[in-house]
Amino acid sequence: MLRARPGAGDPAALLGAIADFTAVDPQQVIPFSILGGRADIGIMALGPDLDALDRLGKAVLAGPVEPVGSFVSLTERSEYTTTEEEERARLEAAGEPEVEARLAAWRERTAAYVDARLHPRLPRRRVIAFYPMSKRRDPGANWYALPFEERILQLITGSTGLDDWEWGVTLLADDPAAIKEIVYEMRFDEVSALYALFGPFWVGLVMEPEEALARAGLLRPPG
Amino acid sequence: MLRARPGAGDPAALLGAIADFTAVDPQQVIPFSILGGRADIGIMALGPDLDALDRLGKAVLAGPVEPVGSFVSLTERSEYTTTEEEERARLEAAGEPEVEARLAAWRERTAAYVDARLHPRLPRRRVIAFYPMSKRRDPGANWYALPFEERILQLITGSTGLDDWEWGVTLLADDPAAIKEIVYEMRFDEVSALYALFGPFWVGLVMEPEEALARAGLLRPPG
Amino acid sequence: MLRARPGAGDPAALLGAIADFTAVDPQQVIPFSILGGRADIGIMALGPDLDALDRLGKAVLAGPVEPVGSFVSLTERSEYTTTEEEERARLEAAGEPEVEARLAAWRERTAAYVDARLHPRLPRRRVIAFYPMSKRRDPGANWYALPFEERILQLITGSTGLDDWEWGVTLLADDPAAIKEIVYEMRFDEVSALYALFGPFWVGLVMEPEEALARAGLLRPPG
Amino acid sequence: MLRARPGAGDPAALLGAIADFTAVDPQQVIPFSILGGRADIGIMALGPDLDALDRLGKAVLAGPVEPVGSFVSLTERSEYTTTEEEERARLEAAGEPEVEARLAAWRERTAAYVDARLHPRLPRRRVIAFYPMSKRRDPGANWYALPFEERILQLITGSTGLDDWEWGVTLLADDPAAIKEIVYEMRFDEVSALYALFGPFWVGLVMEPEEALARAGLLRPPG
Amino acid sequence: MLRARPGAGDPAALLGAIADFTAVDPQQVIPFSILGGRADIGIMALGPDLDALDRLGKAVLAGPVEPVGSFVSLTERSEYTTTEEEERARLEAAGEPEVEARLAAWRERTAAYVDARLHPRLPRRRVIAFYPMSKRRDPGANWYALPFEERILQLITGSTGLDDWEWGVTLLADDPAAIKEIVYEMRFDEVSALYALFGPFWVGLVMEPEEALARAGLLRPPG
Repeated sequence: MLRARPGAGDPAALLGAIADFTAVDPQQVIPFSILGGRADIGIMALGPDLDALDRLGKAVLAGPVEPVGSFVSLTERSEYTTTEEEERARLEAAGEPEVEARLAAWRERTAAYVDARLHPRLPRRRVIAFYPMSKRRDPGANWYALPFEERILQLITGSTGLDDWEWGVTLLADDPAAIKEIVYEMRFDEVSALYALFGPFWVGLVMEPEEALARAGLLRPPG
Repeated sequence: MLRARPGAGDPAALLGAIADFTAVDPQQVIPFSILGGRADIGIMALGPDLDALDRLGKAVLAGPVEPVGSFVSLTERSEYTTTEEEERARLEAAGEPEVEARLAAWRERTAAYVDARLHPRLPRRRVIAFYPMSKRRDPGANWYALPFEERILQLITGSTGLDDWEWGVTLLADDPAAIKEIVYEMRFDEVSALYALFGPFWVGLVMEPEEALARAGLLRPPG
Repeated sequence: MLRARPGAGDPAALLGAIADFTAVDPQQVIPFSILGGRADIGIMALGPDLDALDRLGKAVLAGPVEPVGSFVSLTERSEYTTTEEEERARLEAAGEPEVEARLAAWRERTAAYVDARLHPRLPRRRVIAFYPMSKRRDPGANWYALPFEERILQLITGSTGLDDWEWGVTLLADDPAAIKEIVYEMRFDEVSALYALFGPFWVGLVMEPEEALARAGLLRPPG
Repeated sequence: MLRARPGAGDPAALLGAIADFTAVDPQQVIPFSILGGRADIGIMALGPDLDALDRLGKAVLAGPVEPVGSFVSLTERSEYTTTEEEERARLEAAGEPEVEARLAAWRERTAAYVDARLHPRLPRRRVIAFYPMSKRRDPGANWYALPFEERILQLITGSTGLDDWEWGVTLLADDPAAIKEIVYEMRFDEVSALYALFGPFWVGLVMEPEEALARAGLLRPPG
Repeated sequence: MLRARPGAGDPAALLGAIADFTAVDPQQVIPFSILGGRADIGIMALGPDLDALDRLGKAVLAGPVEPVGSFVSLTERSEYTTTEEEERARLEAAGEPEVEARLAAWRERTAAYVDARLHPRLPRRRVIAFYPMSKRRDPGANWYALPFEERILQLITGSTGLDDWEWGVTLLADDPAAIKEIVYEMRFDEVSALYALFGPFWVGLVMEPEEALARAGLLRPPG
């Protein structure tokens, strides 16, 4: 989360650093224009190489911006994944036919789910929201999971020992009201209401980095 | 909520951005001069287009000001709206005559109330106060509601997932003592006293943007 | 509460704004040099005209100073004023003679007390202390009241809905130890100890505005 | 507690103000180089004249420094001093011989103790630590007292109503480990563990003001 | 923890101060590039000479950097070291043969452990994490201890009375996921979950000081 500081650095260097980073597969960047006055521009970067991420972060800060918030985390498996043995027992107890075929399908679904959590490829949506949280004891367990829900996408990453918060939650949607509703619902979830501690909430409009910089007065609008 | 930074930007650009925004129906802006030294100028902007709101916010910050507080929220229906079935049951239980006519009047009143909440057209009053809050479980339910109270107008908007607070409360009145009294009363409301968590309170004098800028030393006084 | 910023504005404009404000009856200003390094100069302004107070505040900030704290409040009647009926009942129950004459004296005392609370004319003392507080349920009820105590003067103003705190407490005394003792005593008051939440404490030496500015390096010492 | 701002003021003026202040008996200053990066230089000033202390504080801030912390307090008698009657009763109950002679010695010890608390003359030690605290109900009662303990010296001053904290604790020692041990022990004291609320801890190396400024890059090292 | 301020000081002086400090045995410095935008460069310095540490800290701050966090502490023995008598009793109670030989080995192990805690020589690992904590009543007692665990190294130092926190925890590992896992596990430890209060978490990539400065835009990359 960055504050624009016109004249305090070179916007082209910032844009170049983002372009260089995203040129390497599977590294991704989601730039956004932050709603409200707490910051101007947000940049979410994902990739397996910590060193490349550190270089990108430092290169961005060499641009005409000043940091006002940041978050470091790692993707992780959910702690609440059922094992194959548990699934088999469940199927047998329910008297389901074709247990082996069902288990094969379950393995495929689970592998896709775990892979999506560990190596997320985030689609482009209109709105992005982010907040860190702590003390939640069942992240993602009985709530909306990536990527089976269509209206909203959620990515949970772990940051215990790396940041002041234990998890980071990223939400992607086309409709900001969907984000408001889903987080509101979660607040009434018994476990969250009792244990969760929420950090700052950020929300922004996803756009090309050039457009985000132009809107913040750091570039002439593309035209 | 903005701090004046004379010389750090162009006041005409700021005024032009406000004028352009309010030229589009139904977009509104309420500018105010903030009382006390925590900020100088406040700008409340309303409209259905997030993109236009983001552009306005960025254009304002390109002016001779610095942000010291902000709030992002969406208008919403109250959660505590009676359904038509509930109202019919209530009327019948009370043995009221002309149930259908009364229900028609009720529908009209409710539609006006919901429309005023979702698409507010705020009138000009002398004083504006704003504060965010969280954990209140019955916003607007058993308290003063917009627009049926004459002495003070209240607008509640939702910000769960979009801001650090769950609701924003805007109060408009001609007499600042009315604002003090109404918020004081609410503090003794049993539910609020137990559950509500209040954010920073801001209060200001509503005036034309040129006058607010002039008073903060950013323009020569109009004359 | 202001931090000195030598060269960042015109001290004469600041002094002129104070002089203009205090030239209008009953507007008052108490300037003070703040003890400790959290701020340099404090300015307490009182008057019935919010617009004049806002103009003074903005004019002060156009001087070579920067705000580091502020407080907005309104004078108010105590909530704990006995009614005439209660006083009559008390006198009669106590078997006091000349009830009507005593009630007349009571009316006069009460009117003077209420007037002093609503329209305070603060005397010049050597030391001023100020702190905001919240959640105190009996402000001024069973404690020292203005203006019947000689050694220390106290003014309580209300700020619910106007500031983050519910009340502001101003203490005026010649001896700083008297301030320390009275606040310490209050802390052991059962109600305060349980319910009161105290904001930042400020203490300063009352002096002419020229002297306060000179001491903070904003003017040559008068001589 | 000051941050060095090379070039932002005149170091000679700062040093001159300290020299002028300490030239007046019994005014004292203990300058120190603060360990860790939260501040660079600390200045503890003691004296009976609030006006002189305010002038010193303002003169120091006119130097090439910026305040990052401060504390205002008054020396005070301990609340937990035994009265002569209590001591006589204790001696008689214990069947001690020569009660009058013992009481005379007690009077002398107590007078010296009270005088040391009210009019402290702090010796030079290698390390100084300071922290404010609140809600402690027996300051100095059953803990190390000034000046009867050799390894470490403690001064407790009162700040209720003058600062955000109720007491300030200054520790002087040659060995920083002694400070760590004594504060650690106190944390296990039942009363402190339950009731005490501690403010920021500061620790520094006591040295001449010229050396502290030189080390912080504000003067060429003396040589 | 430092923020880069290009042009605000001489990077060569900063590098020289580090080189001078580490030239003296057993003084050590671990420089790192901080992940996330809260700071750019971290410097952990260890040594027995407080004065040399203070000089290093001040010299670093004379470079093109600004402090955004710091921590002061002393190495210490664990409070939970078994005494020789306890170990002998344990061996005898267990009916172990060759009690004396086992005790000799125990003495050697314990001496090495205490020495590693009091005079740590930290090895170079890829990732460093640091966080302060308070109120933990058994630091290092039933958790991973330095230097018997291979995958991750932990150093606990004491700061009661010297810093706002009671302990500092430094973790060194090649894999950041190992740090996340070990801190996550600790959170479920019953004692930590109930009593521990954690300060800010910092994580960085260990590298030569020249590389850390170059990456933060303070030096041309070495090449």
